[in-house]
Amino acid sequence: MSRIPVAVVGATGLAGQEFLVSLAGHPMLQVVKVAASSRSAGKTMAAAAKDDKGASRWFCTEPLPDEMAGLKVEDSATMTTDGVRLVFSAVEADVARELEPRCAANVPVISTASAFRYEPDVPVFLPGVNWDHVGLIDVQRKKRGWKGFITPGPNCTTVGLAMTLRPLDVAFGIERVIMTSMQALSGAGRSPGVTAMDILDNIIPYIPKEEEKVERETAKILGKLVGDAIVPAPLSVSCTCTRVNVLEGHTESVFVQLQRPVRLDDVKAVWRDFGADLAGMGLPSAPKRLIAIREDPYRPQVRLDRDEEGGMATVVGRLREDPALPNGIKYILVSHNTRMGAAKGAILVGEYLIKKGHIA
Amino acid sequence: MSRIPVAVVGATGLAGQEFLVSLAGHPMLQVVKVAASSRSAGKTMAAAAKDDKGASRWFCTEPLPDEMAGLKVEDSATMTTDGVRLVFSAVEADVARELEPRCAANVPVISTASAFRYEPDVPVFLPGVNWDHVGLIDVQRKKRGWKGFITPGPNCTTVGLAMTLRPLDVAFGIERVIMTSMQALSGAGRSPGVTAMDILDNIIPYIPKEEEKVERETAKILGKLVGDAIVPAPLSVSCTCTRVNVLEGHTESVFVQLQRPVRLDDVKAVWRDFGADLAGMGLPSAPKRLIAIREDPYRPQVRLDRDEEGGMATVVGRLREDPALPNGIKYILVSHNTRMGAAKGAILVGEYLIKKGHIA
Amino acid sequence: MSRIPVAVVGATGLAGQEFLVSLAGHPMLQVVKVAASSRSAGKTMAAAAKDDKGASRWFCTEPLPDEMAGLKVEDSATMTTDGVRLVFSAVEADVARELEPRCAANVPVISTASAFRYEPDVPVFLPGVNWDHVGLIDVQRKKRGWKGFITPGPNCTTVGLAMTLRPLDVAFGIERVIMTSMQALSGAGRSPGVTAMDILDNIIPYIPKEEEKVERETAKILGKLVGDAIVPAPLSVSCTCTRVNVLEGHTESVFVQLQRPVRLDDVKAVWRDFGADLAGMGLPSAPKRLIAIREDPYRPQVRLDRDEEGGMATVVGRLREDPALPNGIKYILVSHNTRMGAAKGAILVGEYLIKKGHIA
Amino acid sequence: MSRIPVAVVGATGLAGQEFLVSLAGHPMLQVVKVAASSRSAGKTMAAAAKDDKGASRWFCTEPLPDEMAGLKVEDSATMTTDGVRLVFSAVEADVARELEPRCAANVPVISTASAFRYEPDVPVFLPGVNWDHVGLIDVQRKKRGWKGFITPGPNCTTVGLAMTLRPLDVAFGIERVIMTSMQALSGAGRSPGVTAMDILDNIIPYIPKEEEKVERETAKILGKLVGDAIVPAPLSVSCTCTRVNVLEGHTESVFVQLQRPVRLDDVKAVWRDFGADLAGMGLPSAPKRLIAIREDPYRPQVRLDRDEEGGMATVVGRLREDPALPNGIKYILVSHNTRMGAAKGAILVGEYLIKKGHIA
Repeated sequence: MSRIPVAVVGATGLAGQEFLVSLAGHPMLQVVKVAASSRSAGKTMAAAAKDDKGASRWFCTEPLPDEMAGLKVEDSATMTTDGVRLVFSAVEADVARELEPRCAANVPVISTASAFRYEPDVPVFLPGVNWDHVGLIDVQRKKRGWKGFITPGPNCTTVGLAMTLRPLDVAFGIERVIMTSMQALSGAGRSPGVTAMDILDNIIPYIPKEEEKVERETAKILGKLVGDAIVPAPLSVSCTCTRVNVLEGHTESVFVQLQRPVRLDDVKAVWRDFGADLAGMGLPSAPKRLIAIREDPYRPQVRLDRDEEGGMATVVGRLREDPALPNGIKYILVSHNTRMGAAKGAILVGEYLIKKGHIA
Repeated sequence: MSRIPVAVVGATGLAGQEFLVSLAGHPMLQVVKVAASSRSAGKTMAAAAKDDKGASRWFCTEPLPDEMAGLKVEDSATMTTDGVRLVFSAVEADVARELEPRCAANVPVISTASAFRYEPDVPVFLPGVNWDHVGLIDVQRKKRGWKGFITPGPNCTTVGLAMTLRPLDVAFGIERVIMTSMQALSGAGRSPGVTAMDILDNIIPYIPKEEEKVERETAKILGKLVGDAIVPAPLSVSCTCTRVNVLEGHTESVFVQLQRPVRLDDVKAVWRDFGADLAGMGLPSAPKRLIAIREDPYRPQVRLDRDEEGGMATVVGRLREDPALPNGIKYILVSHNTRMGAAKGAILVGEYLIKKGHIA
Repeated sequence: MSRIPVAVVGATGLAGQEFLVSLAGHPMLQVVKVAASSRSAGKTMAAAAKDDKGASRWFCTEPLPDEMAGLKVEDSATMTTDGVRLVFSAVEADVARELEPRCAANVPVISTASAFRYEPDVPVFLPGVNWDHVGLIDVQRKKRGWKGFITPGPNCTTVGLAMTLRPLDVAFGIERVIMTSMQALSGAGRSPGVTAMDILDNIIPYIPKEEEKVERETAKILGKLVGDAIVPAPLSVSCTCTRVNVLEGHTESVFVQLQRPVRLDDVKAVWRDFGADLAGMGLPSAPKRLIAIREDPYRPQVRLDRDEEGGMATVVGRLREDPALPNGIKYILVSHNTRMGAAKGAILVGEYLIKKGHIA
Repeated sequence: MSRIPVAVVGATGLAGQEFLVSLAGHPMLQVVKVAASSRSAGKTMAAAAKDDKGASRWFCTEPLPDEMAGLKVEDSATMTTDGVRLVFSAVEADVARELEPRCAANVPVISTASAFRYEPDVPVFLPGVNWDHVGLIDVQRKKRGWKGFITPGPNCTTVGLAMTLRPLDVAFGIERVIMTSMQALSGAGRSPGVTAMDILDNIIPYIPKEEEKVERETAKILGKLVGDAIVPAPLSVSCTCTRVNVLEGHTESVFVQLQRPVRLDDVKAVWRDFGADLAGMGLPSAPKRLIAIREDPYRPQVRLDRDEEGGMATVVGRLREDPALPNGIKYILVSHNTRMGAAKGAILVGEYLIKKGHIA
């Protein structure tokens, strides 16, 4: 079977580079086009990954894949979708607002940008959680008159939260959720990202717009597609999001009020069983299990657990009964913000949509 | 007026050293005796603050005060209270269990250890919050047949939480509290404390017994003295306590369900007014205000705010309405765990009890 | 005696803010004018220290002094020296190249920028080390036809090195110097400075132009004024400069080949005696001693020692004989890069020049 | 071919665990025995890797290999060498002094401990550098009357230094070496290792005995076997060793005076060619090249480069001419202290000695 030709736009940023690394040697997808801002346009990817003085501007641990080193970077302001059947977009929200519809007129766009996440006809897929929202794709196509469509992934902080809430909601019903995040530096990007002097021996207690995003996206992702629209899940979510001096991986302290009493073993059982169907589909980027449970009371620890299943599993631990909320439980989760929480999560969505025939 | 002679036991540990530094030149109190484990006994404090090879074992930023350098360290297992009228205790809980009653038979003991915190006849004073528990002192003396008494301070993580909750409880009534802490390294002491390899680029999501302590102490401190016992406040508290790579100062993300609707400005007003009476008493260690409010959305930041008023004020910020809890608010606080949260808080309690005639 | 009115240009950057804080309540100097880029021009300093959304852009631990909060920021591109008799410049090198001569035409300019450091008629004063270069001021005035003059301070990494070498050179003669630095984050400024992701769990082994600066400046500072020019000291210096994850304070590992054999006690003696004359001049910013010696083998430690004498003393330790260099010694030093190494060092130069009549 | 049965002693410490991980599935070696202190004796390795409360005491990123989980831990004080033909020792120096000779009476012992490094009849092998010292094995056997022998690896800080010096010495001759190290936390072990409060925002400028070890070992490793003894290389080495807040990997700033002038390209050429013979021997743990050269001026960076070739290559960069030393060059190196610098280096020595018939 031949690989589907794809473009990666925003290819020189941290998220874009993660796409390239994750697509190296991919059995279903082949990067044939890369685009970035005019500063890099016209250079090869290899050249664009260095500055004028030869210093590296490549941010991933894995090197730039050989197969992409020679690709010529196109200007994202003028690029076309000629020759590709799918676009992965890793641009900033303001660039996405113009670029993504332009591409979606012709081909599907799977994005890490927030620009279209809150539009009523745009599904926000979280792998294994809300594939049933797929019907919104045709709604969007029809309404907008596009051959393609746009589907953005959730905010990286939403990912671990919605992933662990989904099986609880199905099994026990969720009333309310209170979450405090301790987020990694990589979530803020690289140019310039978080300044070292601001975070050494410190915590930054505010990430603009983050809390609203997580509160809103969680309800949308856990919601139901009814007719032409998603009805948000009837749970209330409250977040406080902070930045800590951790390289990669978000840690979240979660308190949940369920709709009925549960035993902790039953919570573990539904987490353990979650995602078995996804694992069975044979998608290259899918983890064997979506949620990994730690029994060691000192886990999950973000440095030790963020790479579980290549960063595609959410790791939970410290599950306890909550003494303050009726039918309450509390736990801590670790989720890799630039793997399942960004490029690799988007690629998994692409694999699913191809498998199901939504990307031709 | 002559200074009251005091002993500091556990003087060679981090908390004990903080007592010494904070009592240097104190107008009401004079350190005339220091005690520690047998390893240091017989040495001068100056000698005990070094190891065999001349390397420093002094952990405070401020140097060992000259006035205490020549004091001979007594063995805490055999020390007496001869010549002192007050003991500050900074020993570990298991040592405290034996030592503190022995001292309290003769003189008051103000402690940072948890050993007696949960005894029904033992008040746990938080400055400005629960002076009305002072009646428990006579209950304790009578019940135990002691000339002195024991009063431990709260766990360092309880301090900022109970401090900010108290005025809310008085003004609006509190239903439930959900708190996630990000605690400093210094809370784990120094021998050995937290290992650097465990916390670099990491978060440790568990501190043994910490959550139970905070949940229980908060209710006790906010409780009422009724007859011979404190009736815990009828609020429910749920905590998740984590350790982060921060030197000093605990950060807490707090969600509160109040008993009636409030405007955020009213919350700020009661915080701002809180502690005016304490500030007016002329106690040397009292801050001008117990709670400082930050309007900058990026504050409080622990490195920038922990030293507010010499570490004696709790700094709050990011006050918002809570979308998930009825009558809910949420905020972030920073509180200095080794100042108001330990030695300096204990000294302030001492100053108050002297002023009120409970220490002769 | 009335205070001399001064301007601070580059007042909104990290170095400029350090000037403001260090000049608050200064007995000889009064800030009456501040200037910065056009972005801040027209605002009060208080307003310029915040961004559009009320978030702080004030980087010092100490707050913006009240006496400067109401000063209106002038545009450094168009500011004049009207009303001031001295300018402290904390702008970047490229801005300095145009601005500093413009100011120096009228009044003295003391700068932290490197723009003029290597001009033959420009003295680079290091307090207590090379006051004898003061004769260059008149050379410069005459040659350039200015009423004022420019004198930049050394690079922050040169400061501790030249300070500890000077008394060695006078007493024993220096043949060669080999130095490896481990430099603090604050040396890279704040906009954006070092990115946190680049330095966590890491060392950056290169700081552009830094090594050449230190090698060249050290020879100039230790050189002699002969006629109209400084003859660089005939020693050779080789540096490797690295960046480490430390907030403030540079650590330097120094190896020195002297011209004749020495005993380590003699080295300590000349360090201990160094700067007594400076301390006796009554200058407000002068430390009691320029070099502090630590005997504890684990010192100097940058976090514990950088604030020695308000950051105005260089702290040395680990003095040993060197087994590889003839007449060799080796030691480690810590020097505060934004105190003696920048604003406070420049202010001390100003105090000296006033005292000696070079600033009217 | 059947695998040689080996024992790992000190198996529960950080270095011992690295041995286990590195020997999992090894084609030539099979761990059949593990030993540790009496505290762990009698437990399975799986049980010994947890504390009483189920918290992990396993420190490697890679999990305890399944094939070793069921091995029963023997008491290292009483263990025998029955059933093994080689012992890897990862105990502390004081334990090694008694245990290693006891084992070497029967079988070869390859160690990471320093106890026997400085004995005249003990070779200290650095892979690819000094295989010619192998003749010392028979000297040792004869002199001590052992069936086996002891060969310790170098101190982890010596490894990268001696590795990069060796080809320089062969090609150009070395006169003197001056080195400043910035060493990782893992070099200090785990129980307790470096305390987090001591190293956050800090550098510790002293590691007891480290400098003397590196100075002495470098000369021994680069020395020549003449008759029954190694004649140390006639170069002088001076080190200053510091600890920085880096998880793994030592960074070293090196200044070298050569015996004759060189061009930098010639230095690179000899580094590039070094170790080709080792790579050709087919040893499982050998890297493809012993030294990797970086041209990016911002490299090597310890977090990005320590894992080069699985931590078995030394990465060098910033090669420059030295302005202070005659025929001088300077460079920076990164070397993985717990891979080539400890367990994996020791295993590679074992592979070599087996291949050459010294271990039967």
